[in-house]
Amino acid sequence: MTDLTIENHGDLIASDRVEGTAVYNRQGERLGKISNFMVDKRNGQVRYAVLSFGGFLGMGHDHYPLPWSMLAYDTGQHGYVVDLDKQLLENAPRYGADQRPDYDDGYGRNVYQYYGLIYPW
Amino acid sequence: MTDLTIENHGDLIASDRVEGTAVYNRQGERLGKISNFMVDKRNGQVRYAVLSFGGFLGMGHDHYPLPWSMLAYDTGQHGYVVDLDKQLLENAPRYGADQRPDYDDGYGRNVYQYYGLIYPW
Repeated sequence: MTDLTIENHGDLIASDRVEGTAVYNRQGERLGKISNFMVDKRNGQVRYAVLSFGGFLGMGHDHYPLPWSMLAYDTGQHGYVVDLDKQLLENAPRYGADQRPDYDDGYGRNVYQYYGLIYPW
Repeated sequence: MTDLTIENHGDLIASDRVEGTAVYNRQGERLGKISNFMVDKRNGQVRYAVLSFGGFLGMGHDHYPLPWSMLAYDTGQHGYVVDLDKQLLENAPRYGADQRPDYDDGYGRNVYQYYGLIYPW
């Protein structure tokens, strides 16, 4: 379990410490964990934190890209908190572990629109 | 070996695919590999890619934070290329695997200054 309150590097976090960190919603339900970031190659901006959960016997987790701006870190829960009802994830954009999509503008707009956000690029 | 030319997600790269990617200098010498990113918590900006190499029998690699802007991806070499002489790394800011520093402004200024860059924050 990653504890970012103990290992705090100023205002920076290490990508390999965030991978695996738990994600909760505001009701305190554990939604899953962060599997990785998606980063803009040109300017180094993190665009998505990918939430993973589900699958059979822990195999083949589904991956849900969440716009980075949706995540806040909660020192009390030692995890990220998103304002996201579990039911909303049922139809959310997702992909299997072995089928990463092209993160093009069309895909990005779909993800942002699903979560009621304006696609900023 | 990560091949970002085959697995290209539009303009985005996956953090867990970059971790482990080889880093070369312009002379074609392999300097090491990327161990992780350091990311600004507030805005999701990647500030450093951490280069790792050295250590005894591959144990206890040293970690060298490189400003993100120093790295370019080379599809021919399937790795990142930095304009960095091997000798310059001899005295470069570094830390052991179990001693991550506070990435505060003082540390950041030292790193940028060492590589002849202006600290932009």
